[in-house]
Amino acid sequence: MGVVIPLGENKNKLASVKPLVDLTRPGMERVNQLILSKAGSDVQMIPEVANHLISSGGKRLRPMLTLASAALYGYEGDGDVKLATSVEFMHTATLLHDDVVDESDMRRGKSTARMIWGNQASVLVGDFLLGQAFRMMVEVGSLEALDVLSTAASVIAEGEVLQLSVAKNMETTEDDYLQVIRAKTAALFAAAAEVGPIIAGTDKAGRNALKSYGMNLGLAFQLVDDVLDYGGKAADLGKNVGDDFREGKITLPVILAYRRGTQEERQFWRDAIEGGQSDDEQLEKALGLINKYGSLGDTIARAVHYGTIARDALAPLPEGPWKKALLEVIDFCIERVN
Amino acid sequence: MGVVIPLGENKNKLASVKPLVDLTRPGMERVNQLILSKAGSDVQMIPEVANHLISSGGKRLRPMLTLASAALYGYEGDGDVKLATSVEFMHTATLLHDDVVDESDMRRGKSTARMIWGNQASVLVGDFLLGQAFRMMVEVGSLEALDVLSTAASVIAEGEVLQLSVAKNMETTEDDYLQVIRAKTAALFAAAAEVGPIIAGTDKAGRNALKSYGMNLGLAFQLVDDVLDYGGKAADLGKNVGDDFREGKITLPVILAYRRGTQEERQFWRDAIEGGQSDDEQLEKALGLINKYGSLGDTIARAVHYGTIARDALAPLPEGPWKKALLEVIDFCIERVN
Repeated sequence: MGVVIPLGENKNKLASVKPLVDLTRPGMERVNQLILSKAGSDVQMIPEVANHLISSGGKRLRPMLTLASAALYGYEGDGDVKLATSVEFMHTATLLHDDVVDESDMRRGKSTARMIWGNQASVLVGDFLLGQAFRMMVEVGSLEALDVLSTAASVIAEGEVLQLSVAKNMETTEDDYLQVIRAKTAALFAAAAEVGPIIAGTDKAGRNALKSYGMNLGLAFQLVDDVLDYGGKAADLGKNVGDDFREGKITLPVILAYRRGTQEERQFWRDAIEGGQSDDEQLEKALGLINKYGSLGDTIARAVHYGTIARDALAPLPEGPWKKALLEVIDFCIERVN
Repeated sequence: MGVVIPLGENKNKLASVKPLVDLTRPGMERVNQLILSKAGSDVQMIPEVANHLISSGGKRLRPMLTLASAALYGYEGDGDVKLATSVEFMHTATLLHDDVVDESDMRRGKSTARMIWGNQASVLVGDFLLGQAFRMMVEVGSLEALDVLSTAASVIAEGEVLQLSVAKNMETTEDDYLQVIRAKTAALFAAAAEVGPIIAGTDKAGRNALKSYGMNLGLAFQLVDDVLDYGGKAADLGKNVGDDFREGKITLPVILAYRRGTQEERQFWRDAIEGGQSDDEQLEKALGLINKYGSLGDTIARAVHYGTIARDALAPLPEGPWKKALLEVIDFCIERVN
């Protein structure tokens, strides 16, 4: 990639998710057990479909955020594990439904559930996991946490519908696109981080700090994901370079290259994204234009911008290993492109 | 149809849903307003898709059950309206997802949302409505009602997956089938009726009475629906006679005709349901066999059986107009076949 990333800290070594993974290990073991147990059903197809996706090696960043944000405020019950599992189920349900909506064949290097069990099972098992997520939230018994997570569920779905409406429309602005990813990705990061302080009984300022951290981390995360689709270590993600392009997805690298392009270049993008002319030859040209206009570097610069906001959101909180781990995750999410 | 239905009351006139409609009118007006407001979104496609289905003339039996079961215990707040709306949204979300799962073209005499806006919008708007349903439940603030309704959401999805697993398998027994409709239809009727006494602060006996009433009413309702698909006033439902047959759906009339048939007749059913040989000529033959073995009349007899259980569930409750209206709805659901 060759993009210089300005980072606030850790200039000499790459940031890592490892401190967060280490700190949350005991909690995540319980989350993983709860995932298996709550994805269980006498209806055999349910655990089959659920475990296919659950075991496919996602990072489980979202439930770790919930555990960490509760621990940051000294929470000691078992509600954090249940809410973290709920968050992961909400995410898994979204992925199952997304694959149907996007007609995707592959996710994380494996065939999607819909390719193996059909669209029907993907829709319905997604619904089941969402129901189980709500049941676990109800068990925890915090109406405030329920409010935050049920609102996130609505907002995520709303964002996905919005994405349908802007799909294949090259006049989509950066603002339009931000509205989509704020809803479809960042809202769940924000909710995952906010419910920690809520069950820990933290004041409004603490809740807001974590919510803002999660929201901006989510934006940075999604923007870097968009960059990875046009280069970087896409193979590690089980994605191929250019998947978004072939599916006609509009992401920030494309928006920037389009808006900065000549009239002729803009016609190319319209033919590719709106007209579906997106084979390997066109992908080569698209990569060339994205490079010509520095779209990847500037998308990363946007991610850094949101990362900085996430960092400042946590700044007033007392120092300690949890805060340090959460801060390092910001850099980790951004440095994934290297 | 010519089927004699043994009913406990109202022998001289047909039972009607009108008393329930009249009693719940003020509440249902508020439910209808809330439906419009909570199906609203800046994302234009959401109210379009939602209102297409919401305005298509469903009976809104489920939200009426919630209002009536709360009123039966003298509830006076506004939680009943919110929970009733949540119940209707859960139902609408299920219909949107069902149409995708069943690849249905028509519902209630109109094109399905998925035929107009695509499977994608149907999946996502369903998710949005489910999210909105949970937000309204959270507003009401009763963890017990949340528990009942979120459990119903899981059970419904589980039932739908179970239905996928038994689909096109002619060895499905009546018990297997009952397990499916108990989960996919009756569970929501039961939850709709149970949350009324819950928010009214009723004791466990009252909750259980209404839950049992709703569950058994739901079973009767679904069985009669299955009968209507093979005759009766199917056109009034916006369905064509034989839709279930053409889609290869296994319902009780088919199960009974299959199990009672000769070896040759059973082969016919396997070819039709499992093998997809279900054109108009085969439908004629199927109707003949269903008639030969009295499958419709016996399915109605099963519905009457569950109706009786629903009636006895309410029996110990004090008399009054609400109870009377709820009892009449049982007969109404069954007499729809005439």
